[in-house]
Amino acid sequence: MKGPGAYQPLNDTWGRFDALVKTLPENTAVLLDARVAQLHPHVRRALRQRTVVAMRAGEGAKSLSSLGRLAGALKALPRNGTLLVVGGGTLGDLGTVAAHVHKRGLKLIHAPSTYLAAVDSSVGGKGALNAAGAKNVLGVFHYAEACWLCPELFTTLSPAQAREGLAEAVKMAACLGAKRFAAFEKSLELSVSAVKSARQCKAKVCAVDPYEQTGKRTVLNFGHTLGHVLEAASGFRLRHGEAVGLGMTCALDVGRHAGVTPEAVAQRVEALLKRLGFHRAALAKAMKTVSRARLQSTLAADKKSVSAQALRMVLLTRVGGWVVKPLARREIEALLPAWQQGRRP
Amino acid sequence: MKGPGAYQPLNDTWGRFDALVKTLPENTAVLLDARVAQLHPHVRRALRQRTVVAMRAGEGAKSLSSLGRLAGALKALPRNGTLLVVGGGTLGDLGTVAAHVHKRGLKLIHAPSTYLAAVDSSVGGKGALNAAGAKNVLGVFHYAEACWLCPELFTTLSPAQAREGLAEAVKMAACLGAKRFAAFEKSLELSVSAVKSARQCKAKVCAVDPYEQTGKRTVLNFGHTLGHVLEAASGFRLRHGEAVGLGMTCALDVGRHAGVTPEAVAQRVEALLKRLGFHRAALAKAMKTVSRARLQSTLAADKKSVSAQALRMVLLTRVGGWVVKPLARREIEALLPAWQQGRRP
Repeated sequence: MKGPGAYQPLNDTWGRFDALVKTLPENTAVLLDARVAQLHPHVRRALRQRTVVAMRAGEGAKSLSSLGRLAGALKALPRNGTLLVVGGGTLGDLGTVAAHVHKRGLKLIHAPSTYLAAVDSSVGGKGALNAAGAKNVLGVFHYAEACWLCPELFTTLSPAQAREGLAEAVKMAACLGAKRFAAFEKSLELSVSAVKSARQCKAKVCAVDPYEQTGKRTVLNFGHTLGHVLEAASGFRLRHGEAVGLGMTCALDVGRHAGVTPEAVAQRVEALLKRLGFHRAALAKAMKTVSRARLQSTLAADKKSVSAQALRMVLLTRVGGWVVKPLARREIEALLPAWQQGRRP
Repeated sequence: MKGPGAYQPLNDTWGRFDALVKTLPENTAVLLDARVAQLHPHVRRALRQRTVVAMRAGEGAKSLSSLGRLAGALKALPRNGTLLVVGGGTLGDLGTVAAHVHKRGLKLIHAPSTYLAAVDSSVGGKGALNAAGAKNVLGVFHYAEACWLCPELFTTLSPAQAREGLAEAVKMAACLGAKRFAAFEKSLELSVSAVKSARQCKAKVCAVDPYEQTGKRTVLNFGHTLGHVLEAASGFRLRHGEAVGLGMTCALDVGRHAGVTPEAVAQRVEALLKRLGFHRAALAKAMKTVSRARLQSTLAADKKSVSAQALRMVLLTRVGGWVVKPLARREIEALLPAWQQGRRP
């Protein structure tokens, strides 16, 4: 007796999209990133016989009105039909919510078209929409039946998109995989084995806390507390992976000041982030748009807040080791001037 | 490892609203039917210290825009907070969806203010919204932590509202409770024991099929196939309970014609429905607005459809006994003229 989209382990297949599409069941509709359709004619061709909803990706897609539009397009899809999502994180989020609520539950298959989606958002069952000005305030857990990893989709990604994926992969290595972290120090790229390792790393965390109830999954939020602040302040023009990359630098600073992250660990992780372009000047630029009032209100609205004055943050204890620490909001706010000035606080 | 709102058995408390409200945890927000607030000042008073979202009930409330409005009002409610819904079926539906998706899961308490909600919609975990012109097309399973039954809320119900609740209670008795059906034949009213019995009857069905996966829960749809047609044709001006009351008469007719429902059984159930006001003239009046095209399209969109031409319907085999029968749509459509003319087909 498992509910719709209940936890199930990773079920990955690597292959070309047009080969995998032949395995789809009859009652499948497709949510397709319009840009992917444009860049990859073989995807469009392979889906010619299917119900396809093409949509523009971006935070704007994660809305109740997109959900309504999808509901109209999927009306003929029977309950227990399948929704295949071909796209990045934002369409993945929308599709996950739609799969969960459409006729009380469709099956879901992810075909991530970005590295960020491949290493992070297509693993772990989460989907969310923005509403009432709050990011991800409405969401579900709906685990995918399967995930297709089609390397040809990654060939058209921009360097910025590759960097985003790397930021999340580095995040997981920094917290959970000392060996993988060392591998990234040698070669900073998203090889097939790096993608596989990031997916398995995240899946392992989700397996012990599939619905984010025990706190064990909190580690995945490393870099996200300040990352969300930067995203919100930029009106979501800053990419999620970029925000997390910069947010990790902030988390290292908070960790040092809280006496949790040893200086040598902070330096080592900061050095790798810098090689990815997440340096103090970039952080200063992004933090310039953050007023103290904005920082306060975004931190207060954080899902991990424990009270109006305090919240929990994931901090590194070593490379491959972490802890969740309750912090007074003002401990974080005190670092804002240094971040804005490009100084190490 | 149970997901948000996973199945849990009935947890009912009977008592006055102002007494029960003292048991609420701190982080509770309330979705309150504006009409209940108007009619029951003690409810309003008891909630004075709480975050209350007052809303007008009705099918219009079951929309994505209501969900967005609620998301704004509940923004400060932490994850794992509680949503108390004081209202009838439509606000119960909206509140159930909101509780499921708000920050990926709140606890839910129902305080049904109508008999229909008390005997039916507040049991069994289902919530749904209308979208893209389709009723209940977006929905969730989210079982309530608790349900408060406050008899003083039922004292202000109209006779039509009482009749609606009775229609659903009679539905459950007709399919599942021969004894309760005989009791209704003696005294056709919603006593405390009748409400308790209807709730337990439905809960028993839901316990063996909490996510509507095995077909065992299908029995609860007795009268709903044609009921939904009537609701849709009336633009949802016809009350749900009324539609089901009339839909049951239709299901008896379909059952006789399919050779499933014995004549004597159909007559006995029809007689009780007639006493509730669900007679042929009322059916004819409601069916007048149903064109054959409308009937076809609504049946084709039915969640229980098995193909474009066929759907499944719950039919009575005896009082207290039922079966699910696949039927060609045209078998049902053939009865439309008789229904429209007030004749027994």
